[in-house]
Amino acid sequence: ATFTIIVPLLLLLLLLSCLRSAFTIDPEPQFIEKYFPQVLDHFNYNSLGNGTFAQHFFVSLDQYWRKNYGPIFFYTGNEGDIWDFALNTGFLTELAAVQGALVIFAEHRFYGKSLPFGQESFNIPQIGLLTVEQALADYAVMVTELKKELGAQKCPVIVFGGSYGGMLSVYMRIRYPNIVAGALAASAPILSTAGMGDTRQFFWDVTADYENYNPACKDTVREAFQKLQTLAEQEDYTHIQSAFSLCKTPSSPKDIHQLNGFLRNAFTLLAMLDYPYSTTFITALPAFPVKVVCDTLLNGTDVLSALRDAVGIVYNATGEQTCYNLYSLYVECADPTGCGLGLNSLAWDYQACTEIEMCFESNNVTDMFPPMPFTQRMREDYCAKRWAVVPRPGWLRTQYWGDALLTASNIIFSNGDLDPWANGGIRKSLSPSLIAINIPEGAHHLDLRASNTADPSSVVKARQREAELIAQWVKTSREKMF
Amino acid sequence: ATFTIIVPLLLLLLLLSCLRSAFTIDPEPQFIEKYFPQVLDHFNYNSLGNGTFAQHFFVSLDQYWRKNYGPIFFYTGNEGDIWDFALNTGFLTELAAVQGALVIFAEHRFYGKSLPFGQESFNIPQIGLLTVEQALADYAVMVTELKKELGAQKCPVIVFGGSYGGMLSVYMRIRYPNIVAGALAASAPILSTAGMGDTRQFFWDVTADYENYNPACKDTVREAFQKLQTLAEQEDYTHIQSAFSLCKTPSSPKDIHQLNGFLRNAFTLLAMLDYPYSTTFITALPAFPVKVVCDTLLNGTDVLSALRDAVGIVYNATGEQTCYNLYSLYVECADPTGCGLGLNSLAWDYQACTEIEMCFESNNVTDMFPPMPFTQRMREDYCAKRWAVVPRPGWLRTQYWGDALLTASNIIFSNGDLDPWANGGIRKSLSPSLIAINIPEGAHHLDLRASNTADPSSVVKARQREAELIAQWVKTSREKMF
Repeated sequence: ATFTIIVPLLLLLLLLSCLRSAFTIDPEPQFIEKYFPQVLDHFNYNSLGNGTFAQHFFVSLDQYWRKNYGPIFFYTGNEGDIWDFALNTGFLTELAAVQGALVIFAEHRFYGKSLPFGQESFNIPQIGLLTVEQALADYAVMVTELKKELGAQKCPVIVFGGSYGGMLSVYMRIRYPNIVAGALAASAPILSTAGMGDTRQFFWDVTADYENYNPACKDTVREAFQKLQTLAEQEDYTHIQSAFSLCKTPSSPKDIHQLNGFLRNAFTLLAMLDYPYSTTFITALPAFPVKVVCDTLLNGTDVLSALRDAVGIVYNATGEQTCYNLYSLYVECADPTGCGLGLNSLAWDYQACTEIEMCFESNNVTDMFPPMPFTQRMREDYCAKRWAVVPRPGWLRTQYWGDALLTASNIIFSNGDLDPWANGGIRKSLSPSLIAINIPEGAHHLDLRASNTADPSSVVKARQREAELIAQWVKTSREKMF
Repeated sequence: ATFTIIVPLLLLLLLLSCLRSAFTIDPEPQFIEKYFPQVLDHFNYNSLGNGTFAQHFFVSLDQYWRKNYGPIFFYTGNEGDIWDFALNTGFLTELAAVQGALVIFAEHRFYGKSLPFGQESFNIPQIGLLTVEQALADYAVMVTELKKELGAQKCPVIVFGGSYGGMLSVYMRIRYPNIVAGALAASAPILSTAGMGDTRQFFWDVTADYENYNPACKDTVREAFQKLQTLAEQEDYTHIQSAFSLCKTPSSPKDIHQLNGFLRNAFTLLAMLDYPYSTTFITALPAFPVKVVCDTLLNGTDVLSALRDAVGIVYNATGEQTCYNLYSLYVECADPTGCGLGLNSLAWDYQACTEIEMCFESNNVTDMFPPMPFTQRMREDYCAKRWAVVPRPGWLRTQYWGDALLTASNIIFSNGDLDPWANGGIRKSLSPSLIAINIPEGAHHLDLRASNTADPSSVVKARQREAELIAQWVKTSREKMF
């Protein structure tokens, strides 16, 4: 009697389970959190790094992968906690669902939970193990080992990354084509961070975003900065404090410099993250934040308080700040595009002091900001004091080819025209397999984000093209191993 | 009156000088010795290597170079004093004369005069800065800087190397195609040193050289080793001492093991350096040394003293040794193909303990030598004790692509069939621009040596083909920068 009940019950359960897997596509990726025992120092066998550390990663093992056949989509983690990137790179899992791929999000050493020496990771000399080369070797070793463990030796690997992560994806393909069949590099400023191009370009393009929305917006920003400058010259610090709701009265040109950096940084961030819907990447932002900030500026009664309210979109999204503490909300560092908010500023500052060159200036001529130069000399002085290092201009260009990329293949360089990083990257296709995709309405790596009903058609088309190219690379890679 | 004498005299001198440069081709390259201020540690900005060292190199500035136009022929120095390689790589200067090239011979860090920490270079942890990656970065940085200094920015660079130097040439092209337009890799065992292939291959092929000259030669060697083994088992050490003219009576299996290594090493070296004319590379050798050693072996009265006389070709070329000191003439290390003669054994031992995998065995079945295994486990034990390092098998294959080379281009893999290293390299063309050239009568990188009347036609033809391909790469590289 028990038997007659149990058997139909089991069959029903199996049927339900089968139906569920056949008809349900989970919109949220299901990741397993893991740690990989990673070589501490790939480039010195007798260093303090003679051992391993636990490298944090996420893997979507059974969700979409056609086991031992489907490709591996590998996100080359950049300067932050890898989970933040996983949450903001929905395109990867959407594509994995369609192409039967395994997804791995790997965390960059010295960020998130992948701190090789725990809290001492940011000490000297421990921090010395933070380099682009070590990060790439981490990913190469990790992929090679995981493929063995998973029985996935024959599964082509495609790398994905945004911003610095996109640079890492490019580097993975040119450095390890034995391991990586192709790369989607979204908003990867591989030229400007290698010291190539115009040092005025970045803030010029930030300015263009505001000007393009409304030329009066740019004029108002410039006027506000000019007014601040006049007050500073008059040493009217009380006025400045009240106008900007500062917690402490500024008392020196240094404080004014900090205030200028704090303000400029808000505009930079909003230009980068000018998405057509509200987001929570780095910080909580409304849809079309450039529009929002310009409307705030243009509707203000006086330009200084309007400027304060405008940057509040970045620094006071929750409305909880009653005053601004300049030195905690913004940290000046070797990256003039911002080190202070959300991202792990210590590690990124170190990278900007060593391999990644970002001597970008604002000058109030080609941009709307106060003149804030950042020369190689200033970088050298700062980095020597802060990290006891001497930057090596030209190294990144030597090491990762600069624009001499013609021997490479299977790389997509996608860029959004709204993104101030875009013109520091590859904007024109270099060959039939080095393809630039430009997204007129796109901000910083919009194409990597999950589909959204507010998406402009240009990003929808870009993602379609990317999907086609990736499918093609996977196919070709299967036919003849790379 | 003075005037009428001086003017004709000056004209005569100018005419003579002009005639000299028009009709004299100097057969010996004229090099300028220089030092380059090289970055000590390319991969860590906070290491003990925060500075520079003087990297030794030679440059043939004005001899053949069509200034600011002709290509740069760059020899990627390997495990030894760079001057030795310059003296034994005459093909480079011959080719430079024809193709109007600048020649640079760059010394590998930790060899020759390029010791980053002087006599302390071989201490731990200083030795940790000796890696393939550092050496490649040295060459990349050096070429980039020298091109600027010489006003040679538009001159295509071709890299050349033999043996490990050939491996470095391959790696330079795949790693830095932005800098290097093509590579001639002569006798570069890129597979066997990356842990790929049969660990018996090397001594099998050494044996084949002797067998191919005369099967009786191989049999005599095996017989002699067998006789030695019998005497060792009988602990008849006095007999062994006298038969092999050893300075010290052996007294343990360890000494016998050392004797076996000492003997095997001579055969290895002669097989590698089996050139058709007398040479002084590594050691002074007669023409066709394999023939010479076999004739010695086959004409001896008893096999033991014949074996002693045979290895005397290597160890006693000058006839000055009255007895053999086993432990000074041969040093056992992590490279079973020999560490002890001529080359800088300390640094090479370290490289064999870290990145370069050479777990080659002799076994007396597939070869004529006594069984002398060298497993990864034995390598690990030795390297931990000697250098406090843990080898990382698989690293070289991950880092430099193993046989997954299809995305590369413009590489010649030349190999001589007499060379026991040959079958550890690329023997078949992989694509129209990854070209294998096999030289039936060639020993270890014979093609890199200067032309010689004793050259077999196969090497003459190989050099012609190499010259054509290199000229083609230079031309193409000029048309579109890489």
